[in-house]
Amino acid sequence: MLGSTHGTLTTDSRRARIIACGEQRPGPAVHGRADPLDGGDDGAGLDVSGRPLYADVPDLARFFRPQSVAVIGASDAEGRPNTGITRQLLTWAERVGARVHPVHPARPSVFGVACCASVADLPEQVDLAVLLVADPLPVIEELAETKVKFAVAFASGFAETGAQGAEAQERLAEAVRRSGLRLLGPNTNLNAFERFRDDLEGPAIALITQSGHQGRPLFALQELGIRLSHWAPTGNEADLETSDFISYFAEQPEVGAIAAYVEGLKDGRAFLLAADRAARRKVPVVAVKVGRTEAGARTAATHTGKLTGADDVVDAAMRQYGVVRVDGLDELQDTAALLARARAPRAEGVVVYSISGGTGAHVADLAAGLGLRLPTLSPDRQAELHQWIPEYLSAANPVDNGGHPVGDERGRKIIDAILADPEVGVLICPVTGPFPPLSDKLVRDLVEAAEATGKLVCVVWGSPVGTEPAYREVLLGSSRVATFRTVGNCLRAVGAWLDHHRFVSDYRSPFDEAPRTPSPSFRKAEALMRPGQQLSEHAAKQLLRAYGIRVPREQLVTSAAAAVRAAGQVGYPVVMKASGAQIAHKTELGLVKIGLTSASQVRDAYRELTDIARYEGVCLDGVLVCQMVEQGVEMVVGMTHDDLFGPTVTVGLGGVLVEVLHDAAVRVPPFGEEQARDMLAELRGRALLDGVRGRPPADLDALVEVVLRVQRIALELGGHLAELDINPLMVLPRGQGAVALDALVVCR
Amino acid sequence: MLGSTHGTLTTDSRRARIIACGEQRPGPAVHGRADPLDGGDDGAGLDVSGRPLYADVPDLARFFRPQSVAVIGASDAEGRPNTGITRQLLTWAERVGARVHPVHPARPSVFGVACCASVADLPEQVDLAVLLVADPLPVIEELAETKVKFAVAFASGFAETGAQGAEAQERLAEAVRRSGLRLLGPNTNLNAFERFRDDLEGPAIALITQSGHQGRPLFALQELGIRLSHWAPTGNEADLETSDFISYFAEQPEVGAIAAYVEGLKDGRAFLLAADRAARRKVPVVAVKVGRTEAGARTAATHTGKLTGADDVVDAAMRQYGVVRVDGLDELQDTAALLARARAPRAEGVVVYSISGGTGAHVADLAAGLGLRLPTLSPDRQAELHQWIPEYLSAANPVDNGGHPVGDERGRKIIDAILADPEVGVLICPVTGPFPPLSDKLVRDLVEAAEATGKLVCVVWGSPVGTEPAYREVLLGSSRVATFRTVGNCLRAVGAWLDHHRFVSDYRSPFDEAPRTPSPSFRKAEALMRPGQQLSEHAAKQLLRAYGIRVPREQLVTSAAAAVRAAGQVGYPVVMKASGAQIAHKTELGLVKIGLTSASQVRDAYRELTDIARYEGVCLDGVLVCQMVEQGVEMVVGMTHDDLFGPTVTVGLGGVLVEVLHDAAVRVPPFGEEQARDMLAELRGRALLDGVRGRPPADLDALVEVVLRVQRIALELGGHLAELDINPLMVLPRGQGAVALDALVVCR
Repeated sequence: MLGSTHGTLTTDSRRARIIACGEQRPGPAVHGRADPLDGGDDGAGLDVSGRPLYADVPDLARFFRPQSVAVIGASDAEGRPNTGITRQLLTWAERVGARVHPVHPARPSVFGVACCASVADLPEQVDLAVLLVADPLPVIEELAETKVKFAVAFASGFAETGAQGAEAQERLAEAVRRSGLRLLGPNTNLNAFERFRDDLEGPAIALITQSGHQGRPLFALQELGIRLSHWAPTGNEADLETSDFISYFAEQPEVGAIAAYVEGLKDGRAFLLAADRAARRKVPVVAVKVGRTEAGARTAATHTGKLTGADDVVDAAMRQYGVVRVDGLDELQDTAALLARARAPRAEGVVVYSISGGTGAHVADLAAGLGLRLPTLSPDRQAELHQWIPEYLSAANPVDNGGHPVGDERGRKIIDAILADPEVGVLICPVTGPFPPLSDKLVRDLVEAAEATGKLVCVVWGSPVGTEPAYREVLLGSSRVATFRTVGNCLRAVGAWLDHHRFVSDYRSPFDEAPRTPSPSFRKAEALMRPGQQLSEHAAKQLLRAYGIRVPREQLVTSAAAAVRAAGQVGYPVVMKASGAQIAHKTELGLVKIGLTSASQVRDAYRELTDIARYEGVCLDGVLVCQMVEQGVEMVVGMTHDDLFGPTVTVGLGGVLVEVLHDAAVRVPPFGEEQARDMLAELRGRALLDGVRGRPPADLDALVEVVLRVQRIALELGGHLAELDINPLMVLPRGQGAVALDALVVCR
Repeated sequence: MLGSTHGTLTTDSRRARIIACGEQRPGPAVHGRADPLDGGDDGAGLDVSGRPLYADVPDLARFFRPQSVAVIGASDAEGRPNTGITRQLLTWAERVGARVHPVHPARPSVFGVACCASVADLPEQVDLAVLLVADPLPVIEELAETKVKFAVAFASGFAETGAQGAEAQERLAEAVRRSGLRLLGPNTNLNAFERFRDDLEGPAIALITQSGHQGRPLFALQELGIRLSHWAPTGNEADLETSDFISYFAEQPEVGAIAAYVEGLKDGRAFLLAADRAARRKVPVVAVKVGRTEAGARTAATHTGKLTGADDVVDAAMRQYGVVRVDGLDELQDTAALLARARAPRAEGVVVYSISGGTGAHVADLAAGLGLRLPTLSPDRQAELHQWIPEYLSAANPVDNGGHPVGDERGRKIIDAILADPEVGVLICPVTGPFPPLSDKLVRDLVEAAEATGKLVCVVWGSPVGTEPAYREVLLGSSRVATFRTVGNCLRAVGAWLDHHRFVSDYRSPFDEAPRTPSPSFRKAEALMRPGQQLSEHAAKQLLRAYGIRVPREQLVTSAAAAVRAAGQVGYPVVMKASGAQIAHKTELGLVKIGLTSASQVRDAYRELTDIARYEGVCLDGVLVCQMVEQGVEMVVGMTHDDLFGPTVTVGLGGVLVEVLHDAAVRVPPFGEEQARDMLAELRGRALLDGVRGRPPADLDALVEVVLRVQRIALELGGHLAELDINPLMVLPRGQGAVALDALVVCR
């Protein structure tokens, strides 16, 4: 798996594109390193905003498999919580052959193992120190001397408790940075050192949880035969965070999928880089991310003291890097298990196979509703199936065998014939009602066929009882068949699996293409910045022009006579607008006049605009006389800031659609041209861009270009800008470009 | 339960309203029967379109509990399918004490029971005849003589096989109508006579399935302690249909909820009447309805030979009568079980309670996302809970006990204190990771608390294993605690349960208010009908005017001079439009001129319109000179026909919203004013009606009035009209009404 990603790094014509200022077409890749995944940072590993371009992957091998462990605060006194933890660690150490050194100032031994009085007395350099003390800070400082690699801190009372706790956590984090060791926690536990089953084969799930309790059902999957390789309960993430574990797990050959329960993220950029690394390595990441609602975000913040981020931005960021977001822990289990264990699809076609036409119709309906493709089997294939299936039943897809053929040799032949079809990549068989004389044979056939094929065979065990031997022994006994308890989870997981493979096979990391040095535009634009102020419309348009975004022909004038002259040069009809810093809601205030067709109208308009401005107490730097642009689709393109991810880029449909329906798509830079096109595809009103009621299709290429240029602004000037909004951007008919008719720019 | 619905029938100020033509305010209820549920039809039980107003409820007691059964085609020959069925019937009959009479022309006895040679030889009048013969038609004819009440036909090869089978089914249905007996099937089975557990208590689920196999998981719920009272496998529904069973089950005191698996409906009106009956009786109906996608609808049609109906109309019809639509069989099970067993809510507030802050945050986030209300507990309540819960944990909601309190007497006290809160109607406790020393006690406390309270206690058993004793024995052993396996299903079921009780407590049957006689408008409107033709705009507007829908001042003229005179009377500015039957796309053809402000403009426009019409070969009945109406919100209100439900009424946002986003809501008449208001609430762009960007709010009352008047047209003229579209309906600012600016009417 490690070697397989080199191909994704070669730059080709389809690679991600982030437009450099001034250029009309993208240039060659900015840097030429053969494999940035080799790690290290030669100084070129930062983008133009100074943020890292590659994840720093910690080596956590000795954390998960330490050979020697110090237990600070070990106990064997009846009834103390630390006693249970000490016992658990000793049992674990015995099983894996690790050496344990209890540390306690007052006890000579714990559970018969000799104690050290202090960290300084440890007989060897340990891999891991488990801190069971109420205040881990002084121990971290002592440990710094001993060259211990890792520590786990159990203590709670840090960022999850509020501002004071957050300060204590920052002090702890600072001590960790000074010490050179890596810390898990505080507010965590020993989930990483539980008893993992070592008799299970095949690719495993690696688990990351910000709440140990929430990982329990995933850990229990081992009882259903699904292998788990690691569990990282990250707690408060004073040092090691979710992203570190994603990056590390993506490098481990035994890991088939990473499952994560995430309440909040410590660092948005670190998360993107980790997800990028997993995408390059083709390792799927499936995540529950709390914070769909305000209430949930608030509660989660209280629980771990992390930021949850604006949910639509989190959602977009995850999709940009192929992270599969799910809602329930049941979906996390089912999706991660399938993505970890199923091989790459041979084809995307899904066949629903059952012993009942009703079941087939129902499941096919739900599958099509979720966007799965159910090809109609070819007449030849249907004829082949009808050797074994009565003529009056459908063998087209869904395939309904009517029941009887399952009971004899026909059963296996039908399954094999479906799987032999080159259009078919997945067979889904819902066993809705177990009837042992038939369903036991059906299930055995499915398991044997799954073992014999490279294609995906899914069974939905529909009985709510779940104690049936065909389920417990036959289905759960096979690692080749994917078994589900609900049709919904099966179909969603299959969809995620197909999406994942499509995503990683086309994946081009946007970090490889991200600009590292400012463009010539940057200096021009920088000069326009007015810290803390809103720019005038005229200045805002100069900024856009500096980045190659087209604005209307326009002139800023300060007299009626100049306005008339300007109108003559710009060309009638013209639009006139009051221009000045801090003007908002121009249209509502009557500070915009459109469709002026004569010198006298221009003169009148000048007078009227300056009168209104005086009356409203608005300070003008002049009046803009602008070319009038009609006949396009009004869009909105903008940049704003997210607490977690920094500058983001938004595109939406203008006018009533954005006002009333908030029909907009967002992305976190860096992103390439494909993502910009995907943004347009996400818009509910996108048909407007394709032309409705005989209107011509809009210039999508020009719109995409503007989105990418705004991204370039966000990357280069993100630190200077609080907000940028092109509203409206008039997208003209295909081939005619797009023009920013108005823009709002607020400096930080 | 039977007596409790009388209250819902009294007419009061909040009752459903279907505007009669000519009246501005609704009159008293059209009919005064004390309780139309008493059944029977005195001739007043038809609405103005001639369709029934009340469900005809068959008495199926003897079908489900027959005392004597004839088995036509009984067999005990090894290997014949009929042998298995005969054996099953004999076993069932022995258990329930029914008499079985095998009928076979050639066998003296079957399984030791003496055979009759033919139906004519039956020794008694039987309640039920089970037809195991390939062609049930002749047997139905013989049975007609014997006064048998019910028959079940197993044979397949009818409507599910295509046109020829559908004809055979129609002949069978005709024979059944002549016979006086009621038939279940053909293409069905003996699911109604399975072994139901009789040791379970409390309200039961009654099950209806159009595919026996799809009912298996619901039947298996009995193994989890959930009572099932009936199972109607309706097959092809040549006679008895899904709606008959809904109506019958709604009357049975032991039925707590009706669960249905529906592929298609035989008769849309019958379904509405059955759902209405269930709503009056406050019996919830939960249904899977196949046909979310074209593909699913097609497959379902092949499977049972029924119409699936346009899915958005099915969806609306179900919501109008409070039918809970779900997607998966797992949701059908979980939702029906909860709705059957849980008592009415004492309050709508939901509290999430768990031993982990992470679990609480996650579940609260999902719950809020689904629209459940999670009240923050009062400071007093929180203080009470903090007697047992450490101060640093949240007792606000979600309530996080941190684990330890569960192990002793505090556990039960916390649960009781939460349930004692008057704002709290539901406690949801996710047991994410079972840890027997804690979770066994937690589960016992929850079960005991559930037994002691009238409030709803839900447990989500999160372990995927499901063999744990706390789940199998303790949770499934209680009928008072509602146990789920996924958080999603629990939350959706709780939402459905709260919605159901809200719905039935406010329920007013629209059938009680439906008009029975045509309004005076009807005669005027009838005279305008031109069978098979599209009316001219002028005629279409006369139709609207007849039903009290406001149209602009306008005159139809046939000369330029008359146009100028008309414009003077209508008042400038005016709009001029070509008028004639069969004109479509007037605007695109240039056949509309707006904003005409002078006699000369009117004269020019007249010439231009008639020229274009000549050039385009369009036949005019004249030119309309209309009052120009601006400053409103453009809506679309229309009537169309659904295959299953007949005339439907649609309202949507005009302009780009309806063109691009298809932002419209639909209802099946009859419906009342509340439903018309709900239609507006469903629109994604509804904020436009409330006023955006400083525009005044629109006259919602006038818009609702137009929707109800279009419904009246649909009811009275539905048989004459193929389509009616008011587009645009200009809804003016509040208090100023709504004006139909254009209308398209196509006669049948």
